[in-house]
Parts: sequence; C-alpha cells; structure tokens
Amino acid sequence: MSNKAAVLVAGSWGTALASVLADKDMEVALWTRNVVQQEEINTKHRNERFLPGVDLSPRLAATTDLEAAVRGAKAVVMVTPSSAAREVARALKPFWHEDMLVVHATKGFEIESMKRISTVIAEELGCDEGRIVVLSGPSHAEEVVNRCPTTVVVASQIAAQAELAQDLFMNPYFRVYTNRDMVGVELAGALKNIIALGAGMSDGLGYGDNAKAALLTRGLAEITRVGVEMGANPLTFAGLAGIGDLVVTATSRHSRNWRAGFMLGEGKPLETVLSQMGMVVEGIRTTKAAHAISEKYQVQMPIAAQLYHVLFEGLDPRTAVEALMGRDRKTEMEVMSLETWEQWHT
Amino acid sequence: MSNKAAVLVAGSWGTALASVLADKDMEVALWTRNVVQQEEINTKHRNERFLPGVDLSPRLAATTDLEAAVRGAKAVVMVTPSSAAREVARALKPFWHEDMLVVHATKGFEIESMKRISTVIAEELGCDEGRIVVLSGPSHAEEVVNRCPTTVVVASQIAAQAELAQDLFMNPYFRVYTNRDMVGVELAGALKNIIALGAGMSDGLGYGDNAKAALLTRGLAEITRVGVEMGANPLTFAGLAGIGDLVVTATSRHSRNWRAGFMLGEGKPLETVLSQMGMVVEGIRTTKAAHAISEKYQVQMPIAAQLYHVLFEGLDPRTAVEALMGRDRKTEMEVMSLETWEQWHT
Repeated sequence: MSNKAAVLVAGSWGTALASVLADKDMEVALWTRNVVQQEEINTKHRNERFLPGVDLSPRLAATTDLEAAVRGAKAVVMVTPSSAAREVARALKPFWHEDMLVVHATKGFEIESMKRISTVIAEELGCDEGRIVVLSGPSHAEEVVNRCPTTVVVASQIAAQAELAQDLFMNPYFRVYTNRDMVGVELAGALKNIIALGAGMSDGLGYGDNAKAALLTRGLAEITRVGVEMGANPLTFAGLAGIGDLVVTATSRHSRNWRAGFMLGEGKPLETVLSQMGMVVEGIRTTKAAHAISEKYQVQMPIAAQLYHVLFEGLDPRTAVEALMGRDRKTEMEVMSLETWEQWHT
Repeated sequence: MSNKAAVLVAGSWGTALASVLADKDMEVALWTRNVVQQEEINTKHRNERFLPGVDLSPRLAATTDLEAAVRGAKAVVMVTPSSAAREVARALKPFWHEDMLVVHATKGFEIESMKRISTVIAEELGCDEGRIVVLSGPSHAEEVVNRCPTTVVVASQIAAQAELAQDLFMNPYFRVYTNRDMVGVELAGALKNIIALGAGMSDGLGYGDNAKAALLTRGLAEITRVGVEMGANPLTFAGLAGIGDLVVTATSRHSRNWRAGFMLGEGKPLETVLSQMGMVVEGIRTTKAAHAISEKYQVQMPIAAQLYHVLFEGLDPRTAVEALMGRDRKTEMEVMSLETWEQWHT
C-alpha cells in the first residue's frame, strides 16, 4: 500500500495537516500554485506567510505540479477556501481514482449554490458523496504544528471511509473521532462562524461573559435547529465540529469572525470593518446565506436575523441585543420529531 | 397577590437574584445570619464581602429573622451552599405553605447522600419534588447586579411551576427560559465543575486552546452520558445549564474550579492548592462523587477518572492527558436509547 498523501493547498491549515501526516512517517506532497512558496517550503522548510516562525518537517515536499503531487497517493486532503473547492476538485478529477481517499477540511458553503463542500467535490469528481470525508473541529493550525494536544472529528456517510481517515491522521497529539453525520459536521463548521461574529459584537459592545455565553448557547440552539431541518443529528452540534469549534472561534482574538464582530460592536460601519480586515470574513458571507436558509426551511434564526439587520440594514447593534433579550418567553427545548431521533439512534 | 419575595441567603448570587427581583418593583427580604451584614445592607445598601463596590437597591431589606423574611412572600429563593441546603430547608419548613413558590439556585449535590438539591429540599418541606424549581445558567453575579444582559433556565417537573419562576424573574436584562428536565439542569450545574477543573489543569500545563476546547467538548459528552443514565434529556447539557455555564466557568480566571485546576496543572500538590484557595472547591468534591456515580451507573467517565487519579492518587497531570489522548479509537456519538428520546420528545 502506498505511503503517500497529497495536500491541496499550502495555507495554514493545509500545511498543519500535512505536518501531522509527516509526523506519521508518510511521504507528503503539498500542492501550491505559488513558486516562491514551493521553494521556501522545499529549501528552508518554512511557510512564513501562513505559519511564521515554524520549522516544518523536511518530509513535506511542495510542488506546483498537481499531477505529480497526487500520483501514487493513497489519500488526497483538500484544504482550499470554500470559493476554490469546485475549481480544485475539477483540476483533481483527471488524476483521481476510486481507491484514492478524499478528505476535505474546508468550512463554509459554495455561496452561489448554497451547496455543502462535499457535494461540490463529489459533483466534480463524479462520485457518490459517501466517498468524501470531512474533517473538522477545534484546531488552531499554529497549535497543531507545535504538536499541542488536539482533537478533531471525521465524518462520512460511509463509516469505513471515516475510519480510513481516522487511521490516516490519528497520532499521539492528534486524536480523531468518527461520526457518520456528514451533513451535521459540515453545517456546524460553516454556521458557527455566524455565532462567532455575534460573540465578537457582544464583546465590542462591552457586554460581559454572561451575554457571550448566552449568545454561544442560544446560537448553538439556533444552528442546531437549522441543521436538523436539513437532515443533521442534533447531537453533532454539541460535539467537536459544533460547540468545540465555536468555543475556540468565539473566544479567540485571532479569529477573523470574532474580530469583525468586535469592530461592528464598537460601532464601526461594515465597509470600514471589511477594509480594515483586508480579507474574507466567512461569518459575514454565511449570515447572508443563513438568511436565505432560514426562509427556505422556515426555521427561526433570531440571532442570525438580528446580525443580518446590523450588517446589511444599518441596525444599531445595541438595539439588536435589546430585541433578542425582549423576545417572547420561550422554553429552552425545541421539540424535535421522533423520526429525527430514530434516523440517528437506532 | 403578594408582591413580596424572600431570598435565603445573602451570598453573591443570592444578593444578585434579590437585586433582579427588586428591579421588578418587588418587596425583597434578604435573609442572613450575620447581624453586621444585615446592618450594612439596610443602612449602606452594600454587601462588601460578596459584591464589593456595588450599590444595591434600597428595596432590599436584610433580616436575620427567617419567619419575618418569609411571612407573606409569594416566593422563596434558596441560594445556599450545597452543604447547607438541608438545614435551611428544615428551618424554612414551619413557615412554608403550598402556595409559596420555592426556587433554588444551588449547584452541587448533598455529598453524603449523593442526592440532588431539589430532592433534599422536597424531603425537608415534605412536598412533591415537582413543586421545586431550579434556576441555573451562565451568570456571574457581578454582571447581573450591573444589569449586563444575562440568560438563565428554570426547570421543574411541573411546567406551570417553572412558568411561575419565569414570570417572577424575567426582566429586560435577565432573560429566563423554561425546561421541564429538572434532573438534567441540576446534574449539569453540578458536574460541569469537574470539567472546569480539567480545563484549568490543561491551561496550567501550558496546553493550548485546542486542548481546552477538546476537554470542554468531550467533558460535555461524558457528563451528558451520565445524565442520560440518571434520567436526563441529553439536549439539556447542550443548553444554558450545561455548555453555557461550562463556557463561563472554564474560561474565567475568577472561577475557583478553573483556578484550582490551573495550580494542579502547574504541578502544585492538592494540599497546597486547597490551603491557597482557602475555600471549598466544588469541582474537587464533585470529582469524588463522579467516581462513585461512574461505578454505580457503569458509565465511562474518562476525564473524571483521570482527574480522580491526579487529585487523590498522585498521578502526574501530564501523564493523565497522555492517557486521554491515547485511548482507543472512538466514534463521537454514543448511541442513546430510543426510550430516552421518546421520554423527552413526544
């Protein structure tokens, strides 16, 4: 059996996952379209733009040749921005065959189509979605390359595929759980960015830990509700891809979503925030998507709705919080159908 | 209908809940056994020991006379340490009648009997446990008295009782959800202290955000498993009394449990930690209780078990973390019975 894996592309998370594989004595090809980055990784064993100051394993071989990267690999790990997933999967197609495991670690939707990333990849590869595995969870890349203890979840509709991915990545500092709820893991990873944005806004408004914990918890309830309507297991949202990742994203000043929310809470207009960030803030795009999802599936998303008003309709953030606090009296538990439970627990 | 409530006793959380009621224009009697504290609250409107620097409402009237405190009250709010719940309920008994709502906000067990606090109170009052309401959730008292937005959950086996408590407390900065899973809310509030202790230990060992998020998420999974065995709804643990409170407790340096864990992670022995804390650390008592529960109900609690080894058997914290990371491969979802779901969702 081949001992080679290919990782596409060499951003911070792609490079970190490649390092995990290198630590398992695998031969790892890291695909990049940037010749300077290729050179830097191969000669200096560094990826300064994405992981400044970190010494990479000499086992990581960067290449700009996709065919060479993938040739003979038993697994391909796709870690592209959500907007590039379709294009990279299309480029991969000529070199891919059914025995080659495909794992992706991209959080988000294809915004135009509202499709999940595994759907996009399967469409381009012309295979069943069950062949794709998603990897997600609370994992700063900087900590993983420094071998800090980390846990993630891998999910696939075919349990055996998830187990292959578990075997591929698991090592003494990187613990991998399986889950067969791919839809839930992908939705949690994408939707949690909205809540992280809201948590940043609460902090920017100067509210306290109570308000932030409320936002995280009620935000989790809200994205769980959407997830269940779309076919996910509610307990997936209480797991690593849901609350686990949410805690890391919403309490870290390194999170782009949290930072963008913080500036909005301080009263800065959206244009100023976006120009100061200088890069994509997934939570802002996802809030727009959630607005559409909420209407399509007829699910209440009160926090996402208020964020939408703040982001795109100029609502004052303080008024948004007051609206959330002043809603009708509710029970904490939204009733879910027995069919949902049977689907996942029998 | 009476517009009076009594709060027992005047600690930080009791005083904060009394302030919420005073802000609803209620007459609030705050019972204390300390004459000096009574005087301070009544004349200076301060409770310097528990809420330094905070101006309290002149509507809070402290008294050392329990009968006077309770006389004519439509509701009694019990906020005692877990170890004092039985004694205070017993003292309340002669003045209590069935029309007087009883809400408690104590997190923990009666350690000797392993009973939940509502069971203890109901036993002493000689009433059905369904008459008791528990209030829990992510709520630093300091923030509540400063009117920062806060959400909590009230639970009772009788929905109407929980709704009475919701009406009693809900105001523009204090949002109250109901839940009929009293067992889950009480267990989550008590057991989460173990996980907060573990999170502090991880920080004390110098591990990162990934490890802490893993501990919170897998810790939540573990206390959920126990809760379900004891009759709770798994989704309660994903709610305000579970993950909501856990986030506040495990990420705040003000939390006693987090701080005790941090010192243990730094390598300090338990005796040193306890003497430096100078007060009860609920998480340490609860870890011992969890050990007994885990054996009684035959539920795996890997994190609590490793903490037990560290606390009471001298295991090195680093070895404990390695043991957790090196366990067998697992799926993220533990299967729960259909009966559990039917019980809560039909």
